[in-house]
Amino acid sequence: MKDIYIADVASFNEGALFNSFFLVLVKQQRTSKTNKPYLNLILGDKTGQIEGRVWDPSDPRIAKDFEKGDVVKVRGSASHFDDRVQMKIDQLRVALPNEVEKSDLLPSTTYDVADLWRQLTGYVESFTNPDLKRLLNTLFADSELAQAFREAPAAKGLHHAWLGGLLEHVISLLGLGESVAKHYPLLDRDLLLTGIILHDIGKVRELSWVSGFEYTLEGSLLGHIHIGSVLAERAMDKLPDFPPKLKTLVLHMILSHHGKLEFGSPKLPMIPEALALSFLDDFDAKMQAVTSEFDKCIRENKPAGELTGKVWSLDQRQLLNTKRWLDDGRD
Amino acid sequence: MKDIYIADVASFNEGALFNSFFLVLVKQQRTSKTNKPYLNLILGDKTGQIEGRVWDPSDPRIAKDFEKGDVVKVRGSASHFDDRVQMKIDQLRVALPNEVEKSDLLPSTTYDVADLWRQLTGYVESFTNPDLKRLLNTLFADSELAQAFREAPAAKGLHHAWLGGLLEHVISLLGLGESVAKHYPLLDRDLLLTGIILHDIGKVRELSWVSGFEYTLEGSLLGHIHIGSVLAERAMDKLPDFPPKLKTLVLHMILSHHGKLEFGSPKLPMIPEALALSFLDDFDAKMQAVTSEFDKCIRENKPAGELTGKVWSLDQRQLLNTKRWLDDGRD
Amino acid sequence: MKDIYIADVASFNEGALFNSFFLVLVKQQRTSKTNKPYLNLILGDKTGQIEGRVWDPSDPRIAKDFEKGDVVKVRGSASHFDDRVQMKIDQLRVALPNEVEKSDLLPSTTYDVADLWRQLTGYVESFTNPDLKRLLNTLFADSELAQAFREAPAAKGLHHAWLGGLLEHVISLLGLGESVAKHYPLLDRDLLLTGIILHDIGKVRELSWVSGFEYTLEGSLLGHIHIGSVLAERAMDKLPDFPPKLKTLVLHMILSHHGKLEFGSPKLPMIPEALALSFLDDFDAKMQAVTSEFDKCIRENKPAGELTGKVWSLDQRQLLNTKRWLDDGRD
Amino acid sequence: MKDIYIADVASFNEGALFNSFFLVLVKQQRTSKTNKPYLNLILGDKTGQIEGRVWDPSDPRIAKDFEKGDVVKVRGSASHFDDRVQMKIDQLRVALPNEVEKSDLLPSTTYDVADLWRQLTGYVESFTNPDLKRLLNTLFADSELAQAFREAPAAKGLHHAWLGGLLEHVISLLGLGESVAKHYPLLDRDLLLTGIILHDIGKVRELSWVSGFEYTLEGSLLGHIHIGSVLAERAMDKLPDFPPKLKTLVLHMILSHHGKLEFGSPKLPMIPEALALSFLDDFDAKMQAVTSEFDKCIRENKPAGELTGKVWSLDQRQLLNTKRWLDDGRD
Amino acid sequence: MKDIYIADVASFNEGALFNSFFLVLVKQQRTSKTNKPYLNLILGDKTGQIEGRVWDPSDPRIAKDFEKGDVVKVRGSASHFDDRVQMKIDQLRVALPNEVEKSDLLPSTTYDVADLWRQLTGYVESFTNPDLKRLLNTLFADSELAQAFREAPAAKGLHHAWLGGLLEHVISLLGLGESVAKHYPLLDRDLLLTGIILHDIGKVRELSWVSGFEYTLEGSLLGHIHIGSVLAERAMDKLPDFPPKLKTLVLHMILSHHGKLEFGSPKLPMIPEALALSFLDDFDAKMQAVTSEFDKCIRENKPAGELTGKVWSLDQRQLLNTKRWLDDGRD
Amino acid sequence: MKDIYIADVASFNEGALFNSFFLVLVKQQRTSKTNKPYLNLILGDKTGQIEGRVWDPSDPRIAKDFEKGDVVKVRGSASHFDDRVQMKIDQLRVALPNEVEKSDLLPSTTYDVADLWRQLTGYVESFTNPDLKRLLNTLFADSELAQAFREAPAAKGLHHAWLGGLLEHVISLLGLGESVAKHYPLLDRDLLLTGIILHDIGKVRELSWVSGFEYTLEGSLLGHIHIGSVLAERAMDKLPDFPPKLKTLVLHMILSHHGKLEFGSPKLPMIPEALALSFLDDFDAKMQAVTSEFDKCIRENKPAGELTGKVWSLDQRQLLNTKRWLDDGRD
Repeated sequence: MKDIYIADVASFNEGALFNSFFLVLVKQQRTSKTNKPYLNLILGDKTGQIEGRVWDPSDPRIAKDFEKGDVVKVRGSASHFDDRVQMKIDQLRVALPNEVEKSDLLPSTTYDVADLWRQLTGYVESFTNPDLKRLLNTLFADSELAQAFREAPAAKGLHHAWLGGLLEHVISLLGLGESVAKHYPLLDRDLLLTGIILHDIGKVRELSWVSGFEYTLEGSLLGHIHIGSVLAERAMDKLPDFPPKLKTLVLHMILSHHGKLEFGSPKLPMIPEALALSFLDDFDAKMQAVTSEFDKCIRENKPAGELTGKVWSLDQRQLLNTKRWLDDGRD
Repeated sequence: MKDIYIADVASFNEGALFNSFFLVLVKQQRTSKTNKPYLNLILGDKTGQIEGRVWDPSDPRIAKDFEKGDVVKVRGSASHFDDRVQMKIDQLRVALPNEVEKSDLLPSTTYDVADLWRQLTGYVESFTNPDLKRLLNTLFADSELAQAFREAPAAKGLHHAWLGGLLEHVISLLGLGESVAKHYPLLDRDLLLTGIILHDIGKVRELSWVSGFEYTLEGSLLGHIHIGSVLAERAMDKLPDFPPKLKTLVLHMILSHHGKLEFGSPKLPMIPEALALSFLDDFDAKMQAVTSEFDKCIRENKPAGELTGKVWSLDQRQLLNTKRWLDDGRD
Repeated sequence: MKDIYIADVASFNEGALFNSFFLVLVKQQRTSKTNKPYLNLILGDKTGQIEGRVWDPSDPRIAKDFEKGDVVKVRGSASHFDDRVQMKIDQLRVALPNEVEKSDLLPSTTYDVADLWRQLTGYVESFTNPDLKRLLNTLFADSELAQAFREAPAAKGLHHAWLGGLLEHVISLLGLGESVAKHYPLLDRDLLLTGIILHDIGKVRELSWVSGFEYTLEGSLLGHIHIGSVLAERAMDKLPDFPPKLKTLVLHMILSHHGKLEFGSPKLPMIPEALALSFLDDFDAKMQAVTSEFDKCIRENKPAGELTGKVWSLDQRQLLNTKRWLDDGRD
Repeated sequence: MKDIYIADVASFNEGALFNSFFLVLVKQQRTSKTNKPYLNLILGDKTGQIEGRVWDPSDPRIAKDFEKGDVVKVRGSASHFDDRVQMKIDQLRVALPNEVEKSDLLPSTTYDVADLWRQLTGYVESFTNPDLKRLLNTLFADSELAQAFREAPAAKGLHHAWLGGLLEHVISLLGLGESVAKHYPLLDRDLLLTGIILHDIGKVRELSWVSGFEYTLEGSLLGHIHIGSVLAERAMDKLPDFPPKLKTLVLHMILSHHGKLEFGSPKLPMIPEALALSFLDDFDAKMQAVTSEFDKCIRENKPAGELTGKVWSLDQRQLLNTKRWLDDGRD
Repeated sequence: MKDIYIADVASFNEGALFNSFFLVLVKQQRTSKTNKPYLNLILGDKTGQIEGRVWDPSDPRIAKDFEKGDVVKVRGSASHFDDRVQMKIDQLRVALPNEVEKSDLLPSTTYDVADLWRQLTGYVESFTNPDLKRLLNTLFADSELAQAFREAPAAKGLHHAWLGGLLEHVISLLGLGESVAKHYPLLDRDLLLTGIILHDIGKVRELSWVSGFEYTLEGSLLGHIHIGSVLAERAMDKLPDFPPKLKTLVLHMILSHHGKLEFGSPKLPMIPEALALSFLDDFDAKMQAVTSEFDKCIRENKPAGELTGKVWSLDQRQLLNTKRWLDDGRD
Repeated sequence: MKDIYIADVASFNEGALFNSFFLVLVKQQRTSKTNKPYLNLILGDKTGQIEGRVWDPSDPRIAKDFEKGDVVKVRGSASHFDDRVQMKIDQLRVALPNEVEKSDLLPSTTYDVADLWRQLTGYVESFTNPDLKRLLNTLFADSELAQAFREAPAAKGLHHAWLGGLLEHVISLLGLGESVAKHYPLLDRDLLLTGIILHDIGKVRELSWVSGFEYTLEGSLLGHIHIGSVLAERAMDKLPDFPPKLKTLVLHMILSHHGKLEFGSPKLPMIPEALALSFLDDFDAKMQAVTSEFDKCIRENKPAGELTGKVWSLDQRQLLNTKRWLDDGRD
């Protein structure tokens, strides 16, 4: 287990020593002002990123064969530069397999994944539609897919994205979907919940989460909407006597879930369940963005009456944390 | 009470007689091909509209002094023209006050208004925030306002709009709001529900529902967002020691509930409750449009596998009634 | 074979008799002013559409069991109404299978389909990439798919759309693609031509051309981009050792060929061949629209110096037929 | 009175001493490379902003209790860094009330405010409409509001914005409005001028100009359009027998003056006076932006034939100062 | 001189005879229900348009050789059809040259053209810039161009467009331009007024006003912006020693006067005079549209408190005539 | 001839001496931290740009009278700063006329200009339309214009733009135009090729390529579309009996070639040749952008399977070099 995290280093004094595992996010050859080669690295773990410099790459204590995406063990000291801390690296070796856990190296959901998964399978068990139930059971019987579904982030980028993010988002949507299906008798509950579970399943192949979160080349060229719809289509084709109408509806929900053509859905939602899915998906994503932004303000000790920074996913809007502001100065 | 409705007339044989009350929606002077003056009327009741013609306006059995907006009693016969039925009118007089109920003349909610109102006051009673509770109680203590709130349609136009439509929409939103407030601990439940109840309150003066549903001149020039925010502001100003923060938040929710500047909100939602309100408002309006469209297809006996017509409020999209289609041919 | 076409009827005198086969495009029950039921039909053949009326549907010479989409044999007379001609129908029966050819009933390409097909297979034969060659050969070895590909229109609607339209459009694009691939060494010629051949293949299931040209329900909900990409993906999956890179590129071309998200492509073109395909597809469609519009002006005897009507697919622009205008008054 | 301004400091030699009053715009705790804490300040006065550093915050000559927004007296020396000058601060204390004038600390209009105010009241005196005259007289009888109206900037941000900017903008519009009302007999002159005077009155509470120019929290959540319309509505409500029609028109002008929904007006201009107001407001704002940009080029000694930088409020357009260019090289 | 106008015919009784001159706007060959050929004409004069039918085109009293654009003398009788009046035409001959005045046949400005022209030349005389003065004097010394400038409409279409409309619009703009140039010292008055006079000069060749108002083919393909800039460029090229800077500025004003690329200006206004011109041009056009709409409401006896119809050039907005509404019920 | 290029300097060791000719792109007076004046220069040649510093501008070996746009001979040494190399300049003098070739100082086409020009004149020789042939021959008989046409870049900015770029782009378009004219019989080949040759001819005066590539003031205010159309119009006016129809068509092609109003064309393409020109122009520009981007990736040794950076002219899209990726790892 790691015992020193990047978040800790910020408070280190100049020259303080450390020794820990990190993920290599960027590796660059550079030349100093005095014309000597050095390595500039960006290292990451679940708490953030930090710049590290190897001033003497020819030193035998520095491994030669590591690359972006490798986990390395690093020994060095803190070095302050303006407002930031850098790492001066004296030793570096590639970590052994399993010497450190992946969940220490990338940000992860704060929920218990096993518990989230139990909730998901609980929803599937509750289905009265036997075809949709066996579709989901068959898909998740593929243990590799199920594992990827538990691990995948919901989006690229080191912020607003974390291991288990996809599952966390789906569980939140299932709760909303259950309420909404009760509210509007028009809606077929099992179909809506199936759409919720499958809408982003293509992300297990669109994204990779080995060294940071990135798009795969296949993901860039085909997108999770296509990848997910093909995954679902193949699963339905293999199930004996899967009703063709239901197949068309499930695929339509995956294809249309972005809600607008300009957001990359090749079809607009044309059934009530698809309309509901696209609204809930957008709403939950925005509520999560707001939550993250409020958490950030609290971490940064911003006053309760100050607006957040401009939130990218909300058209650069600034927001106010109502509850915190109303509570402020109350007692 | 009316015993003959416009929906009934469609099935009348040529020349069949009738005698009933209607609302005058349009009154036009015209001249026939043979150069004789006649009256062309559009008459309405809660079931629809029909064209009526008075071929001899000088007949003493035809009242001279009625206008658009009046309720009239009409005697005449059905007359088929191409695919439509018209009324040939032989007698016409202005109705006495209370001779017929307004709810027979304009489309109304299918719910029991008293019951909807009880639900509304039940929600207010459940508030733990005493300031928001007394704000709503004070507003609805104004019996004229409360009555208008129970009667108002949610929108102009004879379709998708009906007496009690505003209240029906608010009750549906309160149910959704309750679920959503439980789902996201971030949300202040009483503030969200207050925003739901007040967001469209300006419609009680933006719209008139005397002769059909129309914009008042004040409504056209100022809009329900301004009218509603002033209504709420005045009420809060009169309450002793109403917290200024809460006042700003309530007004912000009314001002921002259309969600986008181009939809007429002068401010974007900047607090989580306003964001939730704008999503739910849009979602509920669209689900109602879908429901109305599906009902229309059933009334018109369209096959279950045929798409609806193009739905104006959904970007001219066509929709499929999932449940009906899946059930079709099942037994 | 039909010997009387709808285009001929326009010049018939009042009351002139005729007797021919037509496709039933619309069938409606109506009631006359005198309250008698009659049938209003819209009948079509390859030359256009015409309205027909059965004034006495109970006549034993009128079949009872025909529906929209049926081919019927009709006997009646021409009847002029304002500027239009209608059919007054005295006899009507459902045609026997094969009593008339489908190509007489729907508009068709003016090219020889067998010749177009030979050109298509010629292009495939010329491929130097063995994988793309066997992909296309395998697909068209499915005789049902090949037949649909030869028959399908390129778009819905009775104008700008005809049997064989898809194939005609593909052949035109192959000619352009060949030139462009020579012009830019950057382009992989076989990959570009494969994309051209497959880009609209999903239309064979998105559209139906039995009774006029319409969207299938599956086509409305899933779209030809999804349907086509799944068709291609399945074919590649079945080919032993089909290179995964090539598979991704072929699918990317189908997914991105509309060129913009708002035109229904879930991905923008990200390889040179996809960029070229989306430009050529758009350009050829517009040149065909211009050609059709100019042909229409000539048929309608518009003067050479008069602009066309507003062309829908060119932003309601009006156009001038350069060659015709320059030639006008030359001799 | 201040005798040294930030604009002067730019020409100081390295190490030159100074001693003056400034406004604290930003105050940050930082740590140096050698791990010692220091203060980084941004200080402002009416001529600009400058960075200042307190390298030893524990020095007893440095006040401990000052904050952003305070006026401070500072003693130190100039320090050149690359192309910029910084202040090295040796002494710092909070200024006494009235030790320095606010107009020395924030940019101000170059016009005489008393004279602008006389022009404003002159226009009001000239009104023939008694109701609009007493409306404006009543509003400005509130001396706090009148004072704020004389002080407020027309917009946020240290450039294009200055104390008295709102009043200066209103006076310019009144001149234009007078001409336009004469030109178009359609226009009600007093109504147009009333709209001009009141359109931005909400800015007195939307903005604060204590420490730089900023949005108040109320201003961010409600906006000057709402705040101003409520201010006007309340004033009219208090006037006995104020004509309801006039009230609606005055409010409509405030609500619609941004001219487009997407610019934050909840209503489009629907009366000729509102249409004129929205045009003139936009035109005068742009002419001021152009003037400021030309002044900046002259200050920076740009050649007459060189375009300005990209002007943000004119879609990043570059402009040419016609008169200066035509005069250039003339003599 | 004409003594009967189309506006008069509306009140004629069935069969009333008339005899007058009209312009042939449309001429169509048609066939009646009984299969007989007849002519359908649309005839116009300065008061409007009317449909006319020649039921027996072979009658010797009906001229054979007239075409669209000809002036004809027509004798016939009024015939009512539904709400409209038609002309039944018994005699028709082509008018002799000068038998009737063009200003009787097309709508014209209500101002005295000679007086407008004197105002225009007065402005030019007042110029202090000798180059701009000789440019305009030279242009209008071309009597054909000057005559066309006095006659041209400001836009196509029979409404909002009339003979002399261009000159009327320019005179209105000159008045505004004079005021604005005084208001902003930044502006070069003579340059602004020159831009106002020349901005739409290309319309003299873009439009034709012989038979109604239409685009010429050259106008459709090149547009008045190009035509006008070439007209001005040629005139400047012929003037000895015309300053090149001034030439560029004059051309820039013509090219940029639509204010936005999407409105057909190939350049955005980049000098203050061009910015002012584009604002004033847009503003004056809209004020005229409002005036026309209000006049129409008065002609149609709409109540003062009723909004106008949707105004096309103001985004389908409805407007209120403030002065008329405030006066309504005052006495 | 230059023997040292900027691209070479990147690999120089610290302090290595050099001596060569460069173009002065930027010249700035600055002051160092120690308050001493120095010169900061940006110098360019055909291979790129580099920063150069004159630490002692008073040194007699440093010329005093050079300006932006001058060619200078510079002697100095390489100096590494972070990742970049700068020039420390010890001697600097203005170059003599013709001491160095312009093509060494600005990036140029990699094609042989004489050969490109032969291709261009070959196309003109092949015309069968005598009027279009003499138009082009007359234009290029103006040797100054012909020379400018051979030198001009196709766009501003040091990248994607080079001497001869306009001619290179036109030759590429002529090849495409020839193919397309054969493909669509609708197209008048000589007219299309004339449009291709003339569409950007205004760039010879819109741009200057003396010191880098910049817009002229005339170019900024009038644009190449106007400048080019006037150039063409004048040439046609001088040709005896040039057909007016052809003149209108040629001008229309120049005016409309950007394809959309928002891209600066005052007219949309309304003839088939103009439509084809606007498509091909856009397509060729994008294919060149893709080619440049791929070349850059190869120069930077990016792996074949990595996407390019975001390409500005393709909506910030990233692209994949298909051929290189497919070839990667093949052998």
